[in-house]
Amino acid sequence: MSEHQTYMAMALGIAFDQMGSTSPNPAVGAVIVKNDTVISMGGTRPCGSDHAEVVALKSAREWSAKTGNSIDGAFMYVSLEPCNHHGKTPPCTEAIIASGIKRVYLAMLDPNPLVAGKGVKRLKDAGIDVVLMHEYTAQAADLLRPFKKYILRKRPYILNKSAITLDGRIAADTGSSQWISSEHSRFITHRLRARVDAIIVGKNTYLNDNPSLNVRLESFSDEVTEYFKGKIPFFGRRNIFLEGLVEREPDNIVQPLRVLIGLPEEIDETKKFFTDGNYIIIERKDVYESMAEKGGERSRLLEKLNIETVDCHDYLDMVDGVLQVLYDRGVMLAMLEGGGTLNGSFLDAGAIDQFLYIIAPKVLGSGLPVMRGREKSRIADSLMLHDISGMIIKNDIFYNGYRESYNFEMM
Amino acid sequence: MSEHQTYMAMALGIAFDQMGSTSPNPAVGAVIVKNDTVISMGGTRPCGSDHAEVVALKSAREWSAKTGNSIDGAFMYVSLEPCNHHGKTPPCTEAIIASGIKRVYLAMLDPNPLVAGKGVKRLKDAGIDVVLMHEYTAQAADLLRPFKKYILRKRPYILNKSAITLDGRIAADTGSSQWISSEHSRFITHRLRARVDAIIVGKNTYLNDNPSLNVRLESFSDEVTEYFKGKIPFFGRRNIFLEGLVEREPDNIVQPLRVLIGLPEEIDETKKFFTDGNYIIIERKDVYESMAEKGGERSRLLEKLNIETVDCHDYLDMVDGVLQVLYDRGVMLAMLEGGGTLNGSFLDAGAIDQFLYIIAPKVLGSGLPVMRGREKSRIADSLMLHDISGMIIKNDIFYNGYRESYNFEMM
Repeated sequence: MSEHQTYMAMALGIAFDQMGSTSPNPAVGAVIVKNDTVISMGGTRPCGSDHAEVVALKSAREWSAKTGNSIDGAFMYVSLEPCNHHGKTPPCTEAIIASGIKRVYLAMLDPNPLVAGKGVKRLKDAGIDVVLMHEYTAQAADLLRPFKKYILRKRPYILNKSAITLDGRIAADTGSSQWISSEHSRFITHRLRARVDAIIVGKNTYLNDNPSLNVRLESFSDEVTEYFKGKIPFFGRRNIFLEGLVEREPDNIVQPLRVLIGLPEEIDETKKFFTDGNYIIIERKDVYESMAEKGGERSRLLEKLNIETVDCHDYLDMVDGVLQVLYDRGVMLAMLEGGGTLNGSFLDAGAIDQFLYIIAPKVLGSGLPVMRGREKSRIADSLMLHDISGMIIKNDIFYNGYRESYNFEMM
Repeated sequence: MSEHQTYMAMALGIAFDQMGSTSPNPAVGAVIVKNDTVISMGGTRPCGSDHAEVVALKSAREWSAKTGNSIDGAFMYVSLEPCNHHGKTPPCTEAIIASGIKRVYLAMLDPNPLVAGKGVKRLKDAGIDVVLMHEYTAQAADLLRPFKKYILRKRPYILNKSAITLDGRIAADTGSSQWISSEHSRFITHRLRARVDAIIVGKNTYLNDNPSLNVRLESFSDEVTEYFKGKIPFFGRRNIFLEGLVEREPDNIVQPLRVLIGLPEEIDETKKFFTDGNYIIIERKDVYESMAEKGGERSRLLEKLNIETVDCHDYLDMVDGVLQVLYDRGVMLAMLEGGGTLNGSFLDAGAIDQFLYIIAPKVLGSGLPVMRGREKSRIADSLMLHDISGMIIKNDIFYNGYRESYNFEMM
């Protein structure tokens, strides 16, 4: 690994660490190096605040003031092309030009084809060397998939996570699902929750499992956390999203928005789902209105809840409405933890962008399938996954695949 | 790798090469080395003929006659403890003692606890050094699992092979299943067929797929065979059965016995299943008798077919009868390629010893499940797999797990 690769890998690690807290801004990392020494690092701050480059530059100026050394001639390593436009913050290109940075290493251009290359051009016009490190583009692009979907298709990116038996079951015939995967795997799915903006479940999961859907890393034993200090075997193409999950400890965790699809018949406010106000329930408009019309205690309760409605007359048509609601709330990356029916309707709507399935070394032989979508007449009707990668946690296989290759052209 | 390890790895490779042709004898490999030179090799010959040690010794004597050199003082590397009893052939221990071999390296003791250690004792008593290479025991034991089951439980060993989508489907809702896995994966399953004694399918597979169930390696393109000259990524514990499938080209292929569970309503002798007489159909005795009683053309046809009957009154109770029929025919390793119902009944009968599932990078969302057994009320009702290993072929994952650990104690 060259020194440049080492610094870029650091920047990508920082980018990963920001996932889950920056939406709808992209999670980016930046590292500033002078005379072979890291003088500062920065990651994107929550939306509306500083981008990674500016965070790193501010920290570099502190270093400069403290040490009396100049930033002039330093190198910056950044996971994404610096922006050249005024959003909620001024362009990063101008801050870099003003700083005395001599050379900028990028992992990838902006995923928006309308903007891509403009930041590079501005930097070059100002006399700054720009180096695109192609060998990191695929990895950087994996972290940016949610942002890319969000800005270009105006929909949140959906990651379908599920723990399944080898024979594709997520629960016994009774609905009981505890536990399919190992405690170690569940620890990683809690870390995953820290990286997403929202978690989507359906009514059955809400009723059967009483899930809290929050990040609770402190509830795992020392043996589990120790395990991840050892070497985890990976397979397939390199994927720094998976590596980040096992290798990087989250801090400053932002709890994800809890999303329940379908208003339960009985609202029980003692359910863990209602622990705090960080949730929404999404229901069909016609169903909601017929419930609200009835009046009485239940109607008053409904008014208190965070409910969003979707104007459609069939649950199968509801998926795009759900995506619209989440988009409008700035959800960039949502994790779908549905039962088979909810997963199947998202699949059939073409809404699932990433599959992360945890395949446990168990054969159940019956039970509830992970996907229960429309009938399919041919194998060719299946969705072919791309950019396959995975890892082995205890004896569970984490299998990761995408609906599109990382370099997909947007329409 | 020490020289001893290199020679033992050769012996294990030879043992793998014999699988599928030795039943009900164990597949064993032996290598004889003198002055750091391999002077001969041998693998178990088809049942009733020479064991590996004797094959290697005969070849060593030819070497001796040709070169004028003596075998005295040579080392033998053998994948299994040499036998010390008279079966269809004289004891291998006596042949070794008579040969002048000075030292014998073993990968494992005999899996039969009543016999284990007796061969070693006889060799030691005769002044021969014996070295048990513990580091190869797990690998050697994997190859011997079918033999161990056969001699100790008097049942064939069942390997359930299936190509599934990520969501656990083996076919679309129409029954169409071509193709879930890649051509490269199918090539490996043909090599796998060369290693088993029998292939079991059900009536639906017979009707829907018109399978020939034989080994047809020559029908694959050069691109496929070239692919396996490259490096294949493995994961989990080391498993020389999987390694053998991708790394060793079969020769002297013995076509497996084709086994059809359930007599179809219509017998069509032009089906590929009836290509030659190397098949049996197993049916419930009561069902068969009521079919045969009807007389006419069909009854005459039934008399011509290779049919075995099982005395039971429910298909769910039929599995052990099927195993008994196969055991009586000397089938040591049978591959179950069933649909969900057949797979499920074997699972529920506790009859599946090994699962080799090929997980394709596809999500179907509906279709036929790989397992359709009895209802299960808890995840704890699932079968936990042991000694997990696997490999990646193109983007398919070969997932291999066992009902029992390799060192299971027999009851």
